[in-house]
Amino acid sequence: MQGKMKALRKLETGPGLVMCEVEIPRIQAGEVLVKVKKRAICGTDLHIYKWDEWSQNRLRPPLTTGHEFYGEIVEIGSAVRHYRVGELVTAEMHIVCNQCFQCRTGNAHLCENVVILGVDGDGCFAEYIALPESNLWRVPAGINPDFAAIYDPFGNAVHTVMAGPTVGKTFLITGGGPIGIAAIPVTKAAGASLVILTEVQEYRRNLAKTMGADQVIDPSKEDAVALVKGLTGGQGVDVVLEMSGHPVAIDQGLQSIRKNGRFSLLGIPAKPLTIDLAKQVIFPGITIQGINGRRMYDTWFQMDALLVSGKVDLAPLITHRFPMADFKQAFDIGLSGNSGKILLE
Amino acid sequence: MQGKMKALRKLETGPGLVMCEVEIPRIQAGEVLVKVKKRAICGTDLHIYKWDEWSQNRLRPPLTTGHEFYGEIVEIGSAVRHYRVGELVTAEMHIVCNQCFQCRTGNAHLCENVVILGVDGDGCFAEYIALPESNLWRVPAGINPDFAAIYDPFGNAVHTVMAGPTVGKTFLITGGGPIGIAAIPVTKAAGASLVILTEVQEYRRNLAKTMGADQVIDPSKEDAVALVKGLTGGQGVDVVLEMSGHPVAIDQGLQSIRKNGRFSLLGIPAKPLTIDLAKQVIFPGITIQGINGRRMYDTWFQMDALLVSGKVDLAPLITHRFPMADFKQAFDIGLSGNSGKILLE
Amino acid sequence: MQGKMKALRKLETGPGLVMCEVEIPRIQAGEVLVKVKKRAICGTDLHIYKWDEWSQNRLRPPLTTGHEFYGEIVEIGSAVRHYRVGELVTAEMHIVCNQCFQCRTGNAHLCENVVILGVDGDGCFAEYIALPESNLWRVPAGINPDFAAIYDPFGNAVHTVMAGPTVGKTFLITGGGPIGIAAIPVTKAAGASLVILTEVQEYRRNLAKTMGADQVIDPSKEDAVALVKGLTGGQGVDVVLEMSGHPVAIDQGLQSIRKNGRFSLLGIPAKPLTIDLAKQVIFPGITIQGINGRRMYDTWFQMDALLVSGKVDLAPLITHRFPMADFKQAFDIGLSGNSGKILLE
Amino acid sequence: MQGKMKALRKLETGPGLVMCEVEIPRIQAGEVLVKVKKRAICGTDLHIYKWDEWSQNRLRPPLTTGHEFYGEIVEIGSAVRHYRVGELVTAEMHIVCNQCFQCRTGNAHLCENVVILGVDGDGCFAEYIALPESNLWRVPAGINPDFAAIYDPFGNAVHTVMAGPTVGKTFLITGGGPIGIAAIPVTKAAGASLVILTEVQEYRRNLAKTMGADQVIDPSKEDAVALVKGLTGGQGVDVVLEMSGHPVAIDQGLQSIRKNGRFSLLGIPAKPLTIDLAKQVIFPGITIQGINGRRMYDTWFQMDALLVSGKVDLAPLITHRFPMADFKQAFDIGLSGNSGKILLE
Repeated sequence: MQGKMKALRKLETGPGLVMCEVEIPRIQAGEVLVKVKKRAICGTDLHIYKWDEWSQNRLRPPLTTGHEFYGEIVEIGSAVRHYRVGELVTAEMHIVCNQCFQCRTGNAHLCENVVILGVDGDGCFAEYIALPESNLWRVPAGINPDFAAIYDPFGNAVHTVMAGPTVGKTFLITGGGPIGIAAIPVTKAAGASLVILTEVQEYRRNLAKTMGADQVIDPSKEDAVALVKGLTGGQGVDVVLEMSGHPVAIDQGLQSIRKNGRFSLLGIPAKPLTIDLAKQVIFPGITIQGINGRRMYDTWFQMDALLVSGKVDLAPLITHRFPMADFKQAFDIGLSGNSGKILLE
Repeated sequence: MQGKMKALRKLETGPGLVMCEVEIPRIQAGEVLVKVKKRAICGTDLHIYKWDEWSQNRLRPPLTTGHEFYGEIVEIGSAVRHYRVGELVTAEMHIVCNQCFQCRTGNAHLCENVVILGVDGDGCFAEYIALPESNLWRVPAGINPDFAAIYDPFGNAVHTVMAGPTVGKTFLITGGGPIGIAAIPVTKAAGASLVILTEVQEYRRNLAKTMGADQVIDPSKEDAVALVKGLTGGQGVDVVLEMSGHPVAIDQGLQSIRKNGRFSLLGIPAKPLTIDLAKQVIFPGITIQGINGRRMYDTWFQMDALLVSGKVDLAPLITHRFPMADFKQAFDIGLSGNSGKILLE
Repeated sequence: MQGKMKALRKLETGPGLVMCEVEIPRIQAGEVLVKVKKRAICGTDLHIYKWDEWSQNRLRPPLTTGHEFYGEIVEIGSAVRHYRVGELVTAEMHIVCNQCFQCRTGNAHLCENVVILGVDGDGCFAEYIALPESNLWRVPAGINPDFAAIYDPFGNAVHTVMAGPTVGKTFLITGGGPIGIAAIPVTKAAGASLVILTEVQEYRRNLAKTMGADQVIDPSKEDAVALVKGLTGGQGVDVVLEMSGHPVAIDQGLQSIRKNGRFSLLGIPAKPLTIDLAKQVIFPGITIQGINGRRMYDTWFQMDALLVSGKVDLAPLITHRFPMADFKQAFDIGLSGNSGKILLE
Repeated sequence: MQGKMKALRKLETGPGLVMCEVEIPRIQAGEVLVKVKKRAICGTDLHIYKWDEWSQNRLRPPLTTGHEFYGEIVEIGSAVRHYRVGELVTAEMHIVCNQCFQCRTGNAHLCENVVILGVDGDGCFAEYIALPESNLWRVPAGINPDFAAIYDPFGNAVHTVMAGPTVGKTFLITGGGPIGIAAIPVTKAAGASLVILTEVQEYRRNLAKTMGADQVIDPSKEDAVALVKGLTGGQGVDVVLEMSGHPVAIDQGLQSIRKNGRFSLLGIPAKPLTIDLAKQVIFPGITIQGINGRRMYDTWFQMDALLVSGKVDLAPLITHRFPMADFKQAFDIGLSGNSGKILLE
């Protein structure tokens, strides 16, 4: 397909994004062209928009941003074997090498040579995107297209929840951003007997309740550790899912966890922090897991199963939707924290 | 405590049981005396009642039968440290040695020197029972006493379900006896995306539906394998829980399972049977697990968590209740198959 | 590359193979052409040679046989990215779809659409073979080329050994064919505290001793079960690796295994057999695993590590070598059972 | 048994120990009296001797110290069932409650109510010690009594090594104290393909080489991270066993580990330290494990298997032996760091 399309791009170093007109991408033999129908804004996109330290170190403009979407295949390359025009898809945007140790041992989400579309290559905040067949994910019949547009962050949540035993376990989720919120119904569907969430913003605490949290705590006003201990017979929770990257939340999580507990880290701390490994990790026999991306593609099958069976409903998480042209308004709301997921349609 | 009590006993080899008056058992230093308030009839009790081949080989009458109960501690031995009179308890009736390899490596449910009360020693079909402190299980506040009386078979179900991954998995349960039925809400609470049950008796198929099975199949009239394949996109289920011991069910299970699937055996086949290991196990990479008893005491914590959180409701499973004096009527209904769990109160 | 080459082919249904002259295969964009330097005869090749029931059902002649080799890349396709001419390689001969559930969840060795070269497509008993880049395995410096030629069966052995805990465990290997023999040094390197092998042929028992078995048993003359029990304090072994497919060996394995043991099946029984699931699997809590192929590519990294570190030495296993022209003599020796691995050079 | 015995005791707060004469302990019904034949000095004993901050917070003098020993049962209590006078034993000195969640789910090494003999109660630096039957470990025939005396620290090493996959893995051990040194032959026996150890003291680096380390590094003079990377193809090791508690070693370990690696912490840092969780844990998908004590009693069976099979030889680790009367000299050598294990006989 030839022609022009609109794309939301970082044209040069510095804050902001620009709506541009660019060539529709040409696909290679093993690729498909997808007409994007829905896009979602990720926390990473907010970092890029603000042009924070991480963005400055990682991005090489010019670049089309965005890595969460839902769309329809409109063209297929000559070597594509498993997809055809008209199919509805989302995609894993981590393009992996398939040759390194991680890729060849079932851990491609930790590929040593990964390229992330929307960060290292052109992404989906555009009318069309070119994608390798291997990274496509066919959207099952009956899945709400809104949910298909957020498989990327939903996958972060599912991957984190599923990184250890869940059934009958008690959970503390520290941080009520969209991934923390998405983790709530996943833990419940996965058999959690209790799900507590800490979050300083009232908007997000309310959203957490709507999504099924048994208890929400404002750690800026309440004694989070004492409350968690009180809710768990004085023992602390079996599992902490750290979704904030905030040093206070990490410390509270380590104080609120039971001996032999699982502490799964997805939130990215802005800088190094201090941990009392002796008291908080070694003596109590805690396991700390660094969690990254989504398992390729175990997590994706799990997402399908949770949504198709109706065990998880993400509808309340999608709080705003805008035309792509109104992206500034969308990013402003995202930056305010008074939102769940924001769609660009 | 001294005095007489009523007890339902196998007095000699042969079918049936006799209601007797015997001494209330004397407790040892590490034991407690429990006044039994509710008892439940197990399939094993039906075998003992009928005096089948297994019973003839295993039991050494005279013996008080029964191993499922709920009661109140009325006396404690001098060395008992963690319980007091008046506490409400149920118990693990496998008395283990705590010294063999299995006991010392977290697998006491496979103790090499186990004694089972109600089978190898006096059980709970009596007004009182003496039990070692180590085997007691304190019933949490808010648990329905009826449910506490069936922790033993509920534990079989939970142990079988939890013997591998559950979240987002599809399950086939072959056999709708009380344990198969109890497994239904457990699989659902543990994140199963689909639960199918096969059972020839209509009464039990109806009970399975009430307890939450997504689909029930009468394998005597319907093509069970074709139906399971149809419900799973042609692939078969991820997990089979074999709860019948019937060779046809085992064969159908092996035909209905996906490559790399888990096949967990709890039902006891009456005799050796034929398996095509090449086609049904080796080429498809199936794992077959022999499941026995309940994990001591991982499973018990899981039961508490599933019941206290309200994720599992066992109420419909308890279909009949009788005074202990009417035990003949109770056993007749149990033998008919037209029942779930039957309580003796 | 164009021209003719010699190839050992099954030209029509029936026993035997024929040395033919055929076109050197043309490679596609993602493929390489490998000049084969060493080939090895597998048990599967013996089945094909004899034209047994399995072969009659599976093979569609004409076909070049063979799936174990070592060679040098002599030509690369236009889309090949990670290999260059001159590199020394072996390969995984299971060509998988990369799209099915198994492939996308780290279990490509159980691909639902697998094509095996040398069985379903042209194999390596030829001067050249065309292979997809994705299936190549670079032979590390310092690896004996003879060993590189047998990564396929060595991988079966490693996969079977590594399918559960090994360190400090006691093993019984039933069957002393080349894979059973190869499993001996792998179990030892993997921390086994005792390795016993049963095998009826004296030649192979001797080879097993040379390869490090702590004890070899002739089950046709000795009481294998009693001996295994005697060597394990009466308990039986922790792990049985079944490498024969023989019903007597399977039964002896099930009698010789400890409660909670692992029973891994790699040998293919010729027909269905009878198992006492109640006594031999369910009550003792045994896990039976069907094992197939080699993990792609976890097992391959393990093979490299075991050989490069010198922890495993396969030299004694390679007992015969012939020019490819003398294939009849080679197959005769293979069929006699008086051999380890036989190379065609 | 009645009478007096010698015991090495902390009589009051402050440095040092005093050799005293005290009553031989009276045993209770479930206990045995052991005549201690060999004792070993632990790093913990050095802390107690020096009276460091940890000791000041934890110990309540007066107390007989010591928790590593080998001895002979000379008296048994009335309720002891599995041991008899004359048996040779060592023991797990963590006295656990058998009632808490950890104890009842196979993790008694993390008991919430543990009492450690030699720290919280009278230990083994005496002629006799009273011990509960449940904590005894029968020394298998053929085990060197010196090794039996150090099952406690050897168990720390085995527990740490065995806390994840080992076969074909590359290991970095940071810290060459006795436990770090003991871990070397364990990793090798457990299938490690490469074992590197960092240690600043020359004496201990030499000991590490004698015990089988493939490479030893002096991190005070060499670039440890660069060397480890160089030895592992630039990737870093699969597993770090942290045995020093030193912040520099922890940081070097985190820099030297491969993506998806296991970082097991046994060494106790003296105070909180700074970690870059984002770069060193989350992005690379690292798992950090706090390791404590020894698994009760999985680790003990593993120790028996490794020693009885001859796969591990601890002889070079035992570098000094003294009569108990010369304890000052023994502690001085221990404090110097120029020693492996020191026995008091």
